[in-house]
Amino acid sequence: MPCLTGISILYQCRPEGGQGDVHPIYDAAIAWTGDRIAWVGPAAQLPAAFRDGPAFDAGGRTVIPGLIDCHTHLAFAGWRAEEFEQKLKGASYLEIARAGGGIVSTVRKTREAPAEALVTRCLDHLGRMLALGVTTVEAKSGYGLDLANELKLLEVYRDVASRCTQRLVPTLLAAHTTPPEYKDRRADYVRLVIDEIIPAAARAGLARFCDVFVEETAFSIDDARAIFAAGRRLGLVPKLHADQITDTGGAALAAEVGAVSADHLERSTDSGLRAMAGAGVVAVTLPLASLYLNQPPVQARRLRESGVRVAVATDFNPGSAPSYDLPLALMLACTLQRMTPAEALKGATAWAAHAIGEGAEVGSLLPGRRADLVLLEAESVEQWLYHYRPNCCAAVVAGGQAVVGALSPA
Amino acid sequence: MPCLTGISILYQCRPEGGQGDVHPIYDAAIAWTGDRIAWVGPAAQLPAAFRDGPAFDAGGRTVIPGLIDCHTHLAFAGWRAEEFEQKLKGASYLEIARAGGGIVSTVRKTREAPAEALVTRCLDHLGRMLALGVTTVEAKSGYGLDLANELKLLEVYRDVASRCTQRLVPTLLAAHTTPPEYKDRRADYVRLVIDEIIPAAARAGLARFCDVFVEETAFSIDDARAIFAAGRRLGLVPKLHADQITDTGGAALAAEVGAVSADHLERSTDSGLRAMAGAGVVAVTLPLASLYLNQPPVQARRLRESGVRVAVATDFNPGSAPSYDLPLALMLACTLQRMTPAEALKGATAWAAHAIGEGAEVGSLLPGRRADLVLLEAESVEQWLYHYRPNCCAAVVAGGQAVVGALSPA
Repeated sequence: MPCLTGISILYQCRPEGGQGDVHPIYDAAIAWTGDRIAWVGPAAQLPAAFRDGPAFDAGGRTVIPGLIDCHTHLAFAGWRAEEFEQKLKGASYLEIARAGGGIVSTVRKTREAPAEALVTRCLDHLGRMLALGVTTVEAKSGYGLDLANELKLLEVYRDVASRCTQRLVPTLLAAHTTPPEYKDRRADYVRLVIDEIIPAAARAGLARFCDVFVEETAFSIDDARAIFAAGRRLGLVPKLHADQITDTGGAALAAEVGAVSADHLERSTDSGLRAMAGAGVVAVTLPLASLYLNQPPVQARRLRESGVRVAVATDFNPGSAPSYDLPLALMLACTLQRMTPAEALKGATAWAAHAIGEGAEVGSLLPGRRADLVLLEAESVEQWLYHYRPNCCAAVVAGGQAVVGALSPA
Repeated sequence: MPCLTGISILYQCRPEGGQGDVHPIYDAAIAWTGDRIAWVGPAAQLPAAFRDGPAFDAGGRTVIPGLIDCHTHLAFAGWRAEEFEQKLKGASYLEIARAGGGIVSTVRKTREAPAEALVTRCLDHLGRMLALGVTTVEAKSGYGLDLANELKLLEVYRDVASRCTQRLVPTLLAAHTTPPEYKDRRADYVRLVIDEIIPAAARAGLARFCDVFVEETAFSIDDARAIFAAGRRLGLVPKLHADQITDTGGAALAAEVGAVSADHLERSTDSGLRAMAGAGVVAVTLPLASLYLNQPPVQARRLRESGVRVAVATDFNPGSAPSYDLPLALMLACTLQRMTPAEALKGATAWAAHAIGEGAEVGSLLPGRRADLVLLEAESVEQWLYHYRPNCCAAVVAGGQAVVGALSPA
């Protein structure tokens, strides 16, 4: 079986302990069989049984678990660079939305796009994300907003999942916004989601999670409660966009409905965050969205005090976070939110896995987990996120195969 | 002579007009002779005389002038990743400095480092900066802080300049901070700078500019006035670090002494900025430093209203801006400071050239200027800084030579 030695520090990122506990092993080795990790520990203790396969040398590099982007809106058509400039000149997200721009223009283009074109785009994005060390990606629908197009997006993800290197986890986000044809008839759209879209997606086994954008301009707490209940009955686990622009009580709702995660949380109350911690809901922070929207992000100190587990993701989408650069999101989690590098790393590995129900599969370098790992050109996780460079990823192993760069023979 | 066609948009970035005027030419061509641009314009108008050399095809890519990083502290030994974590936990830059950490630890390591080791590190950094499209770099001394070591750093730059691809512009920053051996004797150190370091550097022709860090914990306005006067007498043009952490009136001083630029300006007053505009001083903003130090950066609106020309640079240094990623600085100039992408581009080309007295040589794609240009994998400058990706630089031409990537034959 293959083994990799010459690792100056390997961060195990076990799913336990505090946010900053990333379990470094110095002068480490890791061995795997097929797509699973067989052994991890100090190289000096590597058993002879694990030395009989191809032996690779990390050349003193740092090893971290394959990164997990646990919140993306991966499949969409078009871009919205022109709005970026409008926002820089002072227009707000809500103003652009109310004027019929923003998300609605992406919905129109995505509905018009053939599935094959969306698949090609997703595969292109995923290839570039892989080069950054991202080996697991959550992907939401939400630019279809009718039965046919929401299913089209989820089918795009099924097709992409069978052709990409990453592990892809699909989420139904039919309740992203009210589509234009339901303007002033939000309740009718909520009924469509509950009565048709959720049952069709669940019957076809196309989604694992049911997500709702809970916001003044999107869906109310009561809408969300009804949608989550309908999803739960058919096996879809709740997830939500909560308290991004206004505090609508999304964090408390996440705790109430037992969501796997609540995401954004820029405006959440301390009591909401504590309720999430108590209910085991993962808090997903999205610093790129805060940066692009020019909003103060939730500070690490508040998250720490609440005791909640924190994941960090990109929110990749064409409006509020048009970047899939997860290492940049981690650097921003440090600089904008004042997380430590170790806390940020835990947020894109162990706790990101928990935010998408994949904790038993990925996110930690432990025997039995998938052999997804990244070799970094950095002497430590602190140095990686402090001396920030465009891409420090020297090689990526996914499911036991070197998929980016090449491993050097020992 | 070589010519490049197939350019969807070429941004000329002429040294005229407003901050956002970047002079796009659609379906453009550019031709050069030796290291100089010979012709730029719409491809349909390319004269036959410029078609007789090797012809290259940009493949529909966007072309911008080679980027200029007009504020770096390139030569230093060691790193300070451990302080990054301390700062994230709440320690301030001044607290770390007062406790004897911070810059003083870099000074100690830089003094101990052999010149050859510093040259090697500089060349490594410059190679990575070149891959990002950076073809001109200003580099400050300031970690030597005694006669021998300040000269050592400037000699390192002279050696590096003869071996690197970039155009390197050296600045004497002996007045970066008071060295430990002059603790409580700042006036004596200012005399050393005036009586020995400036004359020695000027005599040897090792620096173009004389920079002073004007700050409560560094040098006063009166210190700076005396140092600039001494530099001026020997041909060194003033430049200053102004109003970064506290407002000490640095912007007004820059106008008074006719500095080529004043840099940072986070705390400058509106009247200080207007005085700079009136005196033709370029304002250099350093958004990476604002981000790493968790300080509100100066907003584009205030700079616009003052009428000052704005350059954007990295401030690359091991303390407050440990990244040489100029494209990231431009993206942050947009997201944190609300500059438009075009304004940011002008800030890293035409106006950055003016901030280092190189406006007649680089920063604009005009006949007679150096043939320094970047081929971007982005359909426009708006798309480049909106859909932010780790490195969009497909190829770099410096002094007429393809130095990163390869140009495809037409």
